[in-house]
Amino acid sequence: MITDALKKEFETTVGKDNVMTDAVDLHSYSYDSAVLEQIQPGIVVRPEQSEDLGKVVKLCNDNGLKLTVRGAGTNLSGGTIPHPGGVVCLTTALDKILEVNEEDLYAVVQPGVITAKFAAHVAAKGLLYPPDPGSQAVSTLGGNVAENAGGLRALKYGVTKDYVMGVDFFDVNGELIRTGGKTVKCVTGYNLAGLMIASEGTLGVFEKFILKLVPPPAAYKAMMAVFPDVMDASRAVAAIIANKIVPATLEFMDNFTIRTVENFRKAGLPVDAAAMLLIEVDGHPTQVEDDAAKVESICKEHKATSVRVAKDDAERNAVWQARRDALPALARVRPTTVLEDATVPRSKIPAMMEALDKIAKKYDLTIGTFGHAGDGNLHPTILTDKRDKKEWHKVESAIDEIFDEALALGGTLSGEHGIGLAKSKYMKNECGIAAIEYSRKMKSVLDPKGILNPGKILGPLLA
Amino acid sequence: MITDALKKEFETTVGKDNVMTDAVDLHSYSYDSAVLEQIQPGIVVRPEQSEDLGKVVKLCNDNGLKLTVRGAGTNLSGGTIPHPGGVVCLTTALDKILEVNEEDLYAVVQPGVITAKFAAHVAAKGLLYPPDPGSQAVSTLGGNVAENAGGLRALKYGVTKDYVMGVDFFDVNGELIRTGGKTVKCVTGYNLAGLMIASEGTLGVFEKFILKLVPPPAAYKAMMAVFPDVMDASRAVAAIIANKIVPATLEFMDNFTIRTVENFRKAGLPVDAAAMLLIEVDGHPTQVEDDAAKVESICKEHKATSVRVAKDDAERNAVWQARRDALPALARVRPTTVLEDATVPRSKIPAMMEALDKIAKKYDLTIGTFGHAGDGNLHPTILTDKRDKKEWHKVESAIDEIFDEALALGGTLSGEHGIGLAKSKYMKNECGIAAIEYSRKMKSVLDPKGILNPGKILGPLLA
Repeated sequence: MITDALKKEFETTVGKDNVMTDAVDLHSYSYDSAVLEQIQPGIVVRPEQSEDLGKVVKLCNDNGLKLTVRGAGTNLSGGTIPHPGGVVCLTTALDKILEVNEEDLYAVVQPGVITAKFAAHVAAKGLLYPPDPGSQAVSTLGGNVAENAGGLRALKYGVTKDYVMGVDFFDVNGELIRTGGKTVKCVTGYNLAGLMIASEGTLGVFEKFILKLVPPPAAYKAMMAVFPDVMDASRAVAAIIANKIVPATLEFMDNFTIRTVENFRKAGLPVDAAAMLLIEVDGHPTQVEDDAAKVESICKEHKATSVRVAKDDAERNAVWQARRDALPALARVRPTTVLEDATVPRSKIPAMMEALDKIAKKYDLTIGTFGHAGDGNLHPTILTDKRDKKEWHKVESAIDEIFDEALALGGTLSGEHGIGLAKSKYMKNECGIAAIEYSRKMKSVLDPKGILNPGKILGPLLA
Repeated sequence: MITDALKKEFETTVGKDNVMTDAVDLHSYSYDSAVLEQIQPGIVVRPEQSEDLGKVVKLCNDNGLKLTVRGAGTNLSGGTIPHPGGVVCLTTALDKILEVNEEDLYAVVQPGVITAKFAAHVAAKGLLYPPDPGSQAVSTLGGNVAENAGGLRALKYGVTKDYVMGVDFFDVNGELIRTGGKTVKCVTGYNLAGLMIASEGTLGVFEKFILKLVPPPAAYKAMMAVFPDVMDASRAVAAIIANKIVPATLEFMDNFTIRTVENFRKAGLPVDAAAMLLIEVDGHPTQVEDDAAKVESICKEHKATSVRVAKDDAERNAVWQARRDALPALARVRPTTVLEDATVPRSKIPAMMEALDKIAKKYDLTIGTFGHAGDGNLHPTILTDKRDKKEWHKVESAIDEIFDEALALGGTLSGEHGIGLAKSKYMKNECGIAAIEYSRKMKSVLDPKGILNPGKILGPLLA
């Protein structure tokens, strides 16, 4: 319960203009991008200085107030849905790029920096920050680290985890902890930076990051391959990797998604195709030529009816616009869009596609599937209406089966969307009780009052 | 204290032939590759089955016996020096490569697999396991993960951490915990696999690993650039990176090291050179040609007197033999070899080289410096005699100053050798008290009796 006295303390800490308790503000921060029930916080605060962020953490801990820190709230697992009546702390004012070191190839940033803005900033200096989650235009780097965000380029370049060299974070007492560093190699102490990644705000509050940058590729080439059969497309993905080609991006769209995207923006997509692969290879110009030629011939060997190679940047943009359109186009079809990210080893994609097809038929649901085929990270997207209780019940059963199938194929509950509130009940199926108990022990000593983003990942704790 | 009854229990668990208490065996496992005092364990055990490894852990915890798990003991920081009278558990019999998945590019291995043997095994299948620590011919993968081993290829390919997809480990109660997985993307639960890396056996005992494999480069080219001035060589390193070239390997040797190596094996090295850079670029054949030409011209711009490009595999091997000879050659000169690995952001190498020169002069010590210039990870190697108390005192002061200098330049105490016993007292200078306290809290709840490799990283605990 946020008393007037507590509200005053927050106002003293972050300034009166940065404390919100109006109904409309509380409502605004009661949800994120997951399809879950809204939960109203008791107060929303927005520190402008990182010292104040530490003070907010301490104030919450001293008073046993549950704290959820959030940036843009684009996560799809309820990782930033607050505790009822708890504190929401916005990082949006902590948005400074503190350093870009062009000699040593790293940057130092605050957690509230927008991902795409940061990528553009370093691109202007001739450098690349590869992680490119779908929400990059609005997501913050803090959220990316908290969820270990992936993206389209993960196949070749890896995910957020692979670019975090250091994390400074506040522990629950508001003490600043430094971990990792600016050197390529660093083994001093526990890998707390690694532990912070994907911990969804449950073990500490990020103050700043040291992020790795890389030289951008000298050349790239995008292409679109059209398949009359989903299984052939899936097999082409496996064959590309088996031929030791690692494309920067290797994306999949099924027929339903293709048709929906074409309906959304007339771009001349092959609406009769069972599936499309959208592929980009990058690197040295000669390598790009060689890889593109090999990819084209592998797709044709796997019965692609056409492979269109983008001739210029405009054509390349058209390829990626189609991919970017997938989610907004699907989301228009029905009132509720459930975007899943159960992930399998890439050789199991054909089996996963078959399973998805069966599940859709069994429950009579519309599932459009697209996603990152190259790393086995598909996004089966269920189009439904949550208000239709009968259908929603079928959706829940279908989701259960999708997870069971992914795990049976040696995969994971979540490739890049996180566990949050949405998937914590499934954790034991993948990790087993022992891993959860080990994690709970850690949590219990690092956050003894259980104030840091309660309920996320590990479910309700007894603490 | 290992009683007869306890010895019997160990014998029942791992078999009589796998339990050692003879003086000669206890002596054999009383040290590792660090220059530290020997400490005798009370018993040495060698489980042949991974279930038995879990039972050994439980037996130790139930009886409050301090446990140090080790492979080849090649670490340079005392990470595998046992507790006085404690238990040493060898992983050398747990040496199976359980799976190599050529479609999904991963392998599953037990901790006792020898690094080079594993690399050769996957190479025979046309795949690359990049981490190549100097001790790879004898080191185990378990030790590599426990220390987050680096190596020569880290500049382009990263360190052990970058290839660990999953870790199964026993907690202190002998419960098996699974973390990470076989998919390229995985964000299910805390990144416990990441936490295990570099934790030096203090948080759990490794049962198996899932390791990432990559396609090997299609071509490579090695070269040797000779400089009449150390600073010019250092600046050439920075210029290569600033030109957005990322060599697979970019190694440095100073004049003292060059002369010592030439003395060790007559190979025609330039004994008058102030410094040499040993460089390998790899990738697509055309890229290799382009990069090699650029590297050559950058070295010449920075006053290299000669750049020799290896014409064939024999010449390439000669380049790398010289680098591999550095440590054994230096180690012959005096009775005691102190191999340091204080690491700086790579642009600070010239400053670090100047500092090392000053420190050597100040204390009148012989320091040969070689190492991984490309990632700022130099190995200043002090040649001394530990029995000479007066000189040893100077060596200790010099080491203190080397660490101070590395930290002042934004670097780290250890790039790849670990903290172990040797550097735990310096931890607070880099990480601060808060990070150590945070780590100690974790340790205290995950290992309440403090049996897991006590004293390493965090120093003596009160527990």
